[in-house]
Amino acid sequence: MANLLRNIVPSIARASKSLQIPASRCFSTQSTLLCERKEGAQSDSMMDIGCRSIFNSDHDIFRTSCRKFCQEEIVPHHEKMYVNCSGPGFPLHSQIVMPYITHYGTTDQIEKFIPDMVAGKKIGAIAMTEPGAGSDLQGVATNARRDGDDWILNGSKTFITNGYMADVVIVVAVTKPEAKSRAHGISLFLVEEGMKGFNKGRKLKKMGMKAQDTAELFFEDVRLPATALLGKENHGFYGLMQELPQERLLIGVMSTANCEWQFETTREYVKQRKAFGKTLSNLQTIQHKLAELKTKISVTRAFTDQCIELHNKGKLDGAMASMNKYWSSDMQNQVAYDCVQMHGGWGYMSEYPISKAYVDARVQSIYGGANEIMKELIARTIVA
Amino acid sequence: MANLLRNIVPSIARASKSLQIPASRCFSTQSTLLCERKEGAQSDSMMDIGCRSIFNSDHDIFRTSCRKFCQEEIVPHHEKMYVNCSGPGFPLHSQIVMPYITHYGTTDQIEKFIPDMVAGKKIGAIAMTEPGAGSDLQGVATNARRDGDDWILNGSKTFITNGYMADVVIVVAVTKPEAKSRAHGISLFLVEEGMKGFNKGRKLKKMGMKAQDTAELFFEDVRLPATALLGKENHGFYGLMQELPQERLLIGVMSTANCEWQFETTREYVKQRKAFGKTLSNLQTIQHKLAELKTKISVTRAFTDQCIELHNKGKLDGAMASMNKYWSSDMQNQVAYDCVQMHGGWGYMSEYPISKAYVDARVQSIYGGANEIMKELIARTIVA
Amino acid sequence: MANLLRNIVPSIARASKSLQIPASRCFSTQSTLLCERKEGAQSDSMMDIGCRSIFNSDHDIFRTSCRKFCQEEIVPHHEKMYVNCSGPGFPLHSQIVMPYITHYGTTDQIEKFIPDMVAGKKIGAIAMTEPGAGSDLQGVATNARRDGDDWILNGSKTFITNGYMADVVIVVAVTKPEAKSRAHGISLFLVEEGMKGFNKGRKLKKMGMKAQDTAELFFEDVRLPATALLGKENHGFYGLMQELPQERLLIGVMSTANCEWQFETTREYVKQRKAFGKTLSNLQTIQHKLAELKTKISVTRAFTDQCIELHNKGKLDGAMASMNKYWSSDMQNQVAYDCVQMHGGWGYMSEYPISKAYVDARVQSIYGGANEIMKELIARTIVA
Amino acid sequence: MANLLRNIVPSIARASKSLQIPASRCFSTQSTLLCERKEGAQSDSMMDIGCRSIFNSDHDIFRTSCRKFCQEEIVPHHEKMYVNCSGPGFPLHSQIVMPYITHYGTTDQIEKFIPDMVAGKKIGAIAMTEPGAGSDLQGVATNARRDGDDWILNGSKTFITNGYMADVVIVVAVTKPEAKSRAHGISLFLVEEGMKGFNKGRKLKKMGMKAQDTAELFFEDVRLPATALLGKENHGFYGLMQELPQERLLIGVMSTANCEWQFETTREYVKQRKAFGKTLSNLQTIQHKLAELKTKISVTRAFTDQCIELHNKGKLDGAMASMNKYWSSDMQNQVAYDCVQMHGGWGYMSEYPISKAYVDARVQSIYGGANEIMKELIARTIVA
Repeated sequence: MANLLRNIVPSIARASKSLQIPASRCFSTQSTLLCERKEGAQSDSMMDIGCRSIFNSDHDIFRTSCRKFCQEEIVPHHEKMYVNCSGPGFPLHSQIVMPYITHYGTTDQIEKFIPDMVAGKKIGAIAMTEPGAGSDLQGVATNARRDGDDWILNGSKTFITNGYMADVVIVVAVTKPEAKSRAHGISLFLVEEGMKGFNKGRKLKKMGMKAQDTAELFFEDVRLPATALLGKENHGFYGLMQELPQERLLIGVMSTANCEWQFETTREYVKQRKAFGKTLSNLQTIQHKLAELKTKISVTRAFTDQCIELHNKGKLDGAMASMNKYWSSDMQNQVAYDCVQMHGGWGYMSEYPISKAYVDARVQSIYGGANEIMKELIARTIVA
Repeated sequence: MANLLRNIVPSIARASKSLQIPASRCFSTQSTLLCERKEGAQSDSMMDIGCRSIFNSDHDIFRTSCRKFCQEEIVPHHEKMYVNCSGPGFPLHSQIVMPYITHYGTTDQIEKFIPDMVAGKKIGAIAMTEPGAGSDLQGVATNARRDGDDWILNGSKTFITNGYMADVVIVVAVTKPEAKSRAHGISLFLVEEGMKGFNKGRKLKKMGMKAQDTAELFFEDVRLPATALLGKENHGFYGLMQELPQERLLIGVMSTANCEWQFETTREYVKQRKAFGKTLSNLQTIQHKLAELKTKISVTRAFTDQCIELHNKGKLDGAMASMNKYWSSDMQNQVAYDCVQMHGGWGYMSEYPISKAYVDARVQSIYGGANEIMKELIARTIVA
Repeated sequence: MANLLRNIVPSIARASKSLQIPASRCFSTQSTLLCERKEGAQSDSMMDIGCRSIFNSDHDIFRTSCRKFCQEEIVPHHEKMYVNCSGPGFPLHSQIVMPYITHYGTTDQIEKFIPDMVAGKKIGAIAMTEPGAGSDLQGVATNARRDGDDWILNGSKTFITNGYMADVVIVVAVTKPEAKSRAHGISLFLVEEGMKGFNKGRKLKKMGMKAQDTAELFFEDVRLPATALLGKENHGFYGLMQELPQERLLIGVMSTANCEWQFETTREYVKQRKAFGKTLSNLQTIQHKLAELKTKISVTRAFTDQCIELHNKGKLDGAMASMNKYWSSDMQNQVAYDCVQMHGGWGYMSEYPISKAYVDARVQSIYGGANEIMKELIARTIVA
Repeated sequence: MANLLRNIVPSIARASKSLQIPASRCFSTQSTLLCERKEGAQSDSMMDIGCRSIFNSDHDIFRTSCRKFCQEEIVPHHEKMYVNCSGPGFPLHSQIVMPYITHYGTTDQIEKFIPDMVAGKKIGAIAMTEPGAGSDLQGVATNARRDGDDWILNGSKTFITNGYMADVVIVVAVTKPEAKSRAHGISLFLVEEGMKGFNKGRKLKKMGMKAQDTAELFFEDVRLPATALLGKENHGFYGLMQELPQERLLIGVMSTANCEWQFETTREYVKQRKAFGKTLSNLQTIQHKLAELKTKISVTRAFTDQCIELHNKGKLDGAMASMNKYWSSDMQNQVAYDCVQMHGGWGYMSEYPISKAYVDARVQSIYGGANEIMKELIARTIVA
């Protein structure tokens, strides 16, 4: 778990502190006897803390604190998010943006940004996608050219999660346009809110995921100091490639957890809801549907946990991470469809969390590399 | 077409008038040579007017006027709806509520409501569903008891489309609680806005279909005159049963038309959109996906047109209407999923109509009798 | 098999005669009043004669005779076929091979072959597919070169239905190898059993469809007279293209009819079969499954009947025929899977016809152009 | 692995002996460092020995011997079976029948049967299913009544795998008909070939799985000695329940392994097969299909391996075993459908192993408890 924990922890650190859990316990990866643990499929609730063989009792304590923090600190003050799913780009901030800085940043860059980002004083974003290029790095047009020691950045980005509220944005830009392929001519820059020429466009209106903003960003002759370069010049592509498995796994992990939540909330619903003189859960078709859902979620969970374990050992490759991203996000959408259906009319009403889960789910198979891109990546390793 | 036309026409009547199309042409059902018409699957666009063998040239003119009216009178003034899909409960008003009044109303009732409803001065709704009973008529608790010549109405309803803006609501109420089955003890009442004790609750927030309101209605000792009874006392159930095939067909028809629109708008999108150096429509996987979508929509269209023809001859039975409702609405959701996916990130942004189509689609398999109820009704005729 | 074929056509001829249906009326496309007929979905059995608006009473009589003939003449004497599904290549003989000869043959060719083929004295086959080329005409290697007035044919064919028992085979061969595309250099030849150098290979062992042979054919310097050329020299491709819609529709029609038979036989089974103290048809999950099956078959039927009507008017285009072939054959396989499942262990036993239906179904989505090829053809008309 | 190994080993023991692998190495469960192993999804072939974290190097050696044995001893002499899938009821013999005897048998029974069964001199079968009852134990009619110290057995069984060639059959019979539920009145008996009144019916003709016989068995006043009782009188039901998770897991394990074989054989095929001037594996649709297949198989593998680990620790419960049986066997059928399709016409020809795999797969979702029964069992734990 070490790698994941290292990234998950910062944004939660304060919480664990205030909850008086010794930091050491959250970071411990020492394994207890795994053989005593049930899997989620065997537990009363698939969300039970204490189950799943990839975890030990330290993780249980950590998970308990996280849940407590979310319940106490997020739910009451941010009524419009639901703790179960989207939220304001936390994972992007903690598990995607911060790792770039800790992995590729200089000591100065780390000292400048990480403490504030851990403290939640600075919000991060990463700007890859462009209006004309989608997630195709070959099509990046945003560029930075040298001007003395500085860089002059020009271009625009779109679909940037956290873009509107971000204090610091990692911007992907072409720095060597004459390179044979974009892969050899791309660099990353740390662009800060308030820099001259850096403008934020409108927040894009979305089907769901309304608790986190998605924005357009514009760069017009933004002058960047040499210290804004993140990682080596022209090596941005390799950094992106390096981080991708974790980013994809992250989506897979969120999708799988969301499926479990959906299942449990729907199970509760059908056990109390009556229709046509029967409790819904007494109908054979509902029972078989629940059995099918629990099975496909349990199967997905086994795979996701296997990927987490591999990632923790530094052995998750791109193809397997892509499998997890595509499979889990598709699954999340399928599960959401069925769970809304079992809620009947209430499933369509925003006051029921399952309704929000449905529209939030839809983006999972699109962002972070559309699932069709995932299949391309998987296929390359098959027919090579 | 006569039956359908009779119901569709009123709300469009003024439009056709202003467009100077002789009314006679809109109502004519005289058949021209059908053999000269292509089916939608064979036309440049599945939405082409002039195709489909169930139509003749009179229908073509009528369909043209309808589209012109929508484009000129609805689109510009009501930017927040999209003409392609939901809209403010028009079909419910014209094809469901008005037929109840024309089929079961007295001459006085028809004269009182229909002209104003045709003119759009009065909006109609129908209140069947209750918080505790869903679409199960056996569970209706709203009741009306006699008090002299009057009726005293008590109860509450939920999920009522147009409920908030309705001027007249057909309310389903128990009038003979001691009847062996609810089927023999239910009546329909015309309840008007402004009646004492008739209160409208909040508009329910929904995932989609935002252009039409869905509301809760409360009836507290509402005093209704004898003339508020619609149809025979205790015969409400039969009326409901009688109208159901048309109501279900209506959903099937809307779903099928919506699928065609989705397909055509997505086809346009992938033909101009580039990714990874290629136009999307040049990718083999996109091409096969389009072929699959067009095929399943064409198959659905054939069935829906077959149902329209049967309905027009008065021969559409409940089971077949249920098949159409369930199949078409499921199809609409499947098509929407794929079409959003092919739009990539833009498919998730509200400014793209396909995004709205996705969330609007979701309710089609739930309202008008959940698709599981449809399967129950179909199954009864199979295993009987 | 040969004897059977030799009997089928004439027998139906006599039947139609004794029923006093003018032969012309069997082929007549003149429409009677359709409005009185139910669709199959509305009938007691989907196989009922008397339903479906594409038929009139003449067709009913004709269909009755066909069934009677099959029941009386085929079922008892040939226990190993089942009348409901495969059979010994009848449709290929009658609806594919014979039309080639009547459409493209000279008067002499028609007189030579057709009477014997109608009488079942000569069996026909068509040889297109080659070991290395599959259904790709660009890859045809079998060739015929002129030698004086004669042609010398060389090459081999595989997957030839009826190939082993055929008396006459239409062979697709390259006659102008230098043509820019194969489309301009292909001709058709009538090759007869017994010609020197024409050898039949082994019958291929198959998963199902065991009542009709599938064979390899070898041509080694087969000398063909000028009169063996069917249609114009180098125009073979156009002939093949011209006949394809009917061939594809034929598969769609057989698949759809087979689905209906599967549904009815399974309905009968679950209505009498008991398990766990209940009749299977009383289980809600079985009921919903039946409702889903009947719906998807009814939808498919509507589309197939629409295609039949279009074809009857000479208006079925290639893309729509491809849709029908691919959709119906996929459907047949899906339906077969579910119907076997509902039969439980008996569904796996060859003595139950559903078992044979399952393995016979599998080839439908492969032969006559694999369904992936169908999607290519459909897609061309969409993205063109 | 111990439990599984204990059961798998006997029938392979001689093989390992002849291959001169020290027996100790086959049985060792001592774990080596798991963290060095790839998962199957990450290996060159999903069937590679050396991958999968549930195995260690001892298992690798054992798996290598098994494969060698099958290749050298089964493939050449039994051309009509394919080593990849069915085979003559080996798993039933070793993993189902033998465990009943070792778990519930007396020392005498174990000594009498096990050595001969290990040596392959006696073949075992288990007879549960009856013509009228299917897999419903409540419907068992076969019964044994006491006669002195003996038992008199009457009844019939069907769908008995290995039934025709079996030397010893475990027969499920009612011994206390007056018990409130069958669960309390069922016993198991060891019935031997040659006993008077024990007759074997015909071998049932099946769609596939032709290498193992499926037969009907008849018992007419078969006199059994007291020593024929296996386990305690009237406790047969509990024994059946106890063994079920392993029996279901067994099907799941076979299905998953079969999926992997199917994938790899199809991958090889499309990499060498050309159509329309391209190698199949170069087509984007084929590539995406392979990516989808590998993903769903990898996900299934993760779940199956999780179940194997749980079972090895004695912690696999009935619901999770049922999930594995139903999910994996459904998956096997889906994969088989796609793999046959990618083989084109050859996929339908019996000489290609994928053709046999297709028909063999079909029974997996039916026997060992139909998948619908699995869903019932899973559902009970959800809605309880």
